[in-house]
Amino acid sequence: MTIKLGLLGFGTVASGIPFLLEENGDKITAAAKDQIEISKVLVKDEEEKTRLLAAGNDYHFVTDIDDIISDSEIDIVIELMGRIEPAKTFITKALKAGKHVVSANKDLIASHGKELISLAQDKGVAFYYEAAVAGGIPILRTMANSLTSDKVTRILGVLNGTSNFMLTKMVDEGWSYEDALVTAQKLGYAESDPTNDVEGIDAAYKAVILSQFGFGMTIGLEDVTHKGISTISTADVAVAQQLGYVIKLVGAIEETPSGLFAEVSPSFVPKTHPLASVNGVMNAVFVESIGIGQSMYYGPGAGQKPTATSVVADIVRIARHLNDKTIGKPFNEFSREIKLSDLSDVKSRYYFSIETPDKKGQLLQLAEIFSSEDISFEQVLQQKAQGERASVVIITHEMSKTALANVTAKLSEVAEFKVLNTFKVLGE
Amino acid sequence: MTIKLGLLGFGTVASGIPFLLEENGDKITAAAKDQIEISKVLVKDEEEKTRLLAAGNDYHFVTDIDDIISDSEIDIVIELMGRIEPAKTFITKALKAGKHVVSANKDLIASHGKELISLAQDKGVAFYYEAAVAGGIPILRTMANSLTSDKVTRILGVLNGTSNFMLTKMVDEGWSYEDALVTAQKLGYAESDPTNDVEGIDAAYKAVILSQFGFGMTIGLEDVTHKGISTISTADVAVAQQLGYVIKLVGAIEETPSGLFAEVSPSFVPKTHPLASVNGVMNAVFVESIGIGQSMYYGPGAGQKPTATSVVADIVRIARHLNDKTIGKPFNEFSREIKLSDLSDVKSRYYFSIETPDKKGQLLQLAEIFSSEDISFEQVLQQKAQGERASVVIITHEMSKTALANVTAKLSEVAEFKVLNTFKVLGE
Ligand SMILES: NC(=O)c1ccc[n+]([C@@H]2O[C@H](COP(=O)([O-])OP(=O)(O)OC[C@H]3O[C@@H](n4cnc5c(N)ncnc54)[C@H](OP(=O)(O)O)[C@@H]3O)[C@@H](O)[C@H]2O)c1
Ligand SMILES: NC(=O)c1ccc[n+]([C@@H]2O[C@H](COP(=O)([O-])OP(=O)(O)OC[C@H]3O[C@@H](n4cnc5c(N)ncnc54)[C@H](OP(=O)(O)O)[C@@H]3O)[C@@H](O)[C@H]2O)c1
Repeated sequence: MTIKLGLLGFGTVASGIPFLLEENGDKITAAAKDQIEISKVLVKDEEEKTRLLAAGNDYHFVTDIDDIISDSEIDIVIELMGRIEPAKTFITKALKAGKHVVSANKDLIASHGKELISLAQDKGVAFYYEAAVAGGIPILRTMANSLTSDKVTRILGVLNGTSNFMLTKMVDEGWSYEDALVTAQKLGYAESDPTNDVEGIDAAYKAVILSQFGFGMTIGLEDVTHKGISTISTADVAVAQQLGYVIKLVGAIEETPSGLFAEVSPSFVPKTHPLASVNGVMNAVFVESIGIGQSMYYGPGAGQKPTATSVVADIVRIARHLNDKTIGKPFNEFSREIKLSDLSDVKSRYYFSIETPDKKGQLLQLAEIFSSEDISFEQVLQQKAQGERASVVIITHEMSKTALANVTAKLSEVAEFKVLNTFKVLGE
Repeated sequence: MTIKLGLLGFGTVASGIPFLLEENGDKITAAAKDQIEISKVLVKDEEEKTRLLAAGNDYHFVTDIDDIISDSEIDIVIELMGRIEPAKTFITKALKAGKHVVSANKDLIASHGKELISLAQDKGVAFYYEAAVAGGIPILRTMANSLTSDKVTRILGVLNGTSNFMLTKMVDEGWSYEDALVTAQKLGYAESDPTNDVEGIDAAYKAVILSQFGFGMTIGLEDVTHKGISTISTADVAVAQQLGYVIKLVGAIEETPSGLFAEVSPSFVPKTHPLASVNGVMNAVFVESIGIGQSMYYGPGAGQKPTATSVVADIVRIARHLNDKTIGKPFNEFSREIKLSDLSDVKSRYYFSIETPDKKGQLLQLAEIFSSEDISFEQVLQQKAQGERASVVIITHEMSKTALANVTAKLSEVAEFKVLNTFKVLGE
C-alpha cells in the first residue's frame, strides 16, 4: 500500500517535504512500512498553480479543498498554510472526512486546538503537530512518549528564534534593539510587522502547547502572561553581563502548590545555565522534573528543512500506526483539570532598573519600599546617570508575583522614581 | 488488569523505581492504561533479603531466578544487576519464557545485544533499554520515533559522566588528572578501578548502541576506537583554553562516503559549541543530520532517579503496547548492512603537542614531515619547555586518519621529537 498525502499550501515548510521523502526515502519507507507519496497539493489559485508548474514542481496542484477532502485515496492531510482561517475550516473538513491531519500551525493549535483535538478523537483519526513547537526539536513526542514516567515541575524555553537572534546580537555585539530588529528583518528572520515575535506572542502560543504536553493542562492563550523584548536597553544588557547573566526571552511554565503558571518574559539567565548558550535562531526547551532532574532539548526553532523534518516524523508515525492498526490515539494523552496558580505562589528573583534623583537618601527610601513588601536585596548597583539623575539596579531575593505587583504600584506612587525595567532573574 | 514486574537486582537504579511509581502514579497509570506493580524482586541471597526487609523494603524478595521466570503473572522482567553474567542468562530465560524485558545494562547490550534482540523478536516480546545510553536522557526512543524522518550524518556525545566531571575540574579549576580522579572517587563518581570510565570503554559501549539507532548498523565494540583521558596534561588543558577550546571526552560516530566510523577520544571542542557547556556529570548527545541540521539532547547520564525514569518510561511503553496489542516491535527498527569507513575518508583537524630540542630549525623539520603527508598547519605555538627542550603545539587543517597514522609513524622515527599528545579538534 502507498500512503497518500494531501498538502494544503506549498510555501516554505511544505516545499521541504519532497526533499526528505527523496533524500531519506529508504529509511522513511522502512519506518512507515509503506511508501509515502504526495498525491495532491492545494494552492490558492490558478496563477500560483501555473507558477509552481513552470518552476518545475511536478505535483497534482488543485485549487479547491474539496478535491482533496473528497479524494478517498488521500490518507493524511498536511496543513501548512498558516493563519487561523481558512486553515481551521480545512482541517475540520479533513478530520470530519476521516482523514488524519498533520499541522505546524501553532497559532491555530494554541487558540483552537482543543476542539480540533476532540474532533479528531471522535473521528478516531490522528491530529499531530510536532513542528508547532520549536520547529526542528522533537520535543512534543519526547514529552508524550518518554517523559510519561516523569513529573515535570517547570519548563523553561527559548522558543522564538527571531527574538533570540536579536538578543544574541544585543548581548554579543552590544547592538541596540532597533539595530537588531532591522538586521533581523533584512535577514528574513523577522517579518515587517514583528509584533508576534518580539512581544512574546509567538512564544506564548508555544507555551500553551507545552503546558498540555508537560502538565496535562490545556490553558488558553489569555492564561499566558507575556512581555516582549522591545524595552530592553543596552544598559540592561550591560548590567546583566556585569553581574554574570545574559538576557533571553524565556517562556516559563511551572506548577506551584496552587496550580499552573505560564508566562513569557525577558529573563536574566545565569551564564552557566544551559539556556544561556542557546544563541542566534536556535531554540531550546529546558525541563525540570522529579525524575530526570534537568534535561534540555536543543535545535533549530524554524527553517524549511528542520520544520519539514518534524512534519515528516508525524507523517511517518501516522503511516506506521495505520500499518499497526493503532491509529487514533491522541498525540498527547496527558490530561488533567486546569488549575491556575495563585500569584502569591509564583516566586522568582527580580531585576529592577530604577532611575532616581541624584541626591542622598534615595537608596534608603527604595529599601524601605521594598522592605514594606518583605522583599530583600541580593545585589545593588548604584551609578550616576545623566544630569541630575542616578540609576539604581537591584537584584532581589526570591519574591512572589503579588509582592512584585505591590512594590511596583508603590514605586509608581513616588514621582521621583522611574522604574525603567523589571525582569525575572533565573537561578542556576 | 495490573501489569506485574519482576525486578532482577535491587541496587541503585532498581530501588529508584518505587519512588516514581509512587510519586507519579496517576500519570504513569494513565499513560500505561494499567496499574503497574512490583511483584517480585530477585536478590543474591537470604542475607540480602533479610537486610532489605529489615530496612523496610516491603517486597516479595526471591533468590531463585526461576521463581520469576515461572511466574506466569509477571509480564515484564527488569534487569538491573549489571555485568554480563548472570544477567545474560537471566534475560535469555525471561525472553524465552515470553516475558518482556527492560534493561539498563550497556555492557551487555553493546557486547551481546544482537542475539538478545533477535531472540526477543523471535518470541514476539519487547526488549527495551533506554537507560543504557546517557541514563536520564531519552535519546534512544527519540531517535527511534522522531528522527525516523531524518538522516543522521554524525553523532557527537559526551557520554561518560565520570570523565566529564574530571575534565570539567581540570578545565575550570586547573586540577591535574590525578587530583580529579581522587576527588571523583571520593564523591562516588568513579569506581576504585576507573578503567572503563577514564579509558573511554563505557562511552564506547554507548557508541555501539547509538550506532544502531542513529545509523542502523550494529557494529561491535571492537569497531569503536577508544582513547582515554589519562594522558591529558595541565599543559594540554591550558593550551586548549588559550586557543578557545575545552577538552572533552567525545564519542563520535559518523558516516563517510565509504561507511561508518566510531571512536571515543579526548577532543578539543570550540567554546562556542553546544557540547562545550556540558559540564560535570551531565551528558549530551549532539546530532548532525540532513533535516534538522543540529540538535542536542542534554541531561544527567547517570544517577538513581534519572536512570530509573528511563527504565520506567520503557515499562510504560511496554504496558501501553500490551494494552494496544502492538507489543513485540523492536525498540530500534532501523537496520542496514554494516559497512565500516575507510580510514582515508575519516577527516578532522588535529592538535599535536610535540617536545623538541630547543634549537633552530625544529619547526622547519616538523613542517617538512607534516607537509610530506599533505598536512598543513592552521595554528602553531612554540614555547620554551624545561631545560634544553621546547614545546611545539600544532593545530592542523583537516586531515585523514591515514595521514594521522603516517605522520605519527614518521614523527616517531625522529629520535629528537617526542609527541606528547594528539587530540582531535572539532569544528564550530
Ligand atoms: N517557516 C518556519 O520555519 C516554520 C516553523 C514552525 C512552524 N511553521 C508553521 O508552518 C506553517 C507554514 O509556514 P511557512 O513558513 O511554510 O509559511 P509560508 O511560506 O507562508 O507558506 C504558506 C503557504 O500557504 C499558502 N496559502 C495560504 N492560504 C492558502 C489557501 N487558502 N489555499 C492554498 N494555499 C494557501 C500561501 O500562499 P500565499 O503566499 O499566496 O499566501 C503560502 O504559499 C505556519 O503555520 C507556520 O506557523 C513554520
Ligand atoms: N547507576 C547508574 O547511574 C546507572 C546509569 C545507567 C545505567 N546503569 C546500569 O544499570 C544497571 C544497574 O546499575 P546500578 O548502579 O543500580 O548497580 P548496583 O547498585 O550495583 O545494583 C546492582 C544490584 O544487583 C545485585 N546483583 C548482582 N548480581 C545479582 C544476582 N545474580 N542476583 C541478584 N542480584 C544481583 C547487586 O548485588 P551486590 O551488590 O550484592 O552485587 C546489586 O544490589 C547496570 O547495568 C548499570 O550499568 C546504571
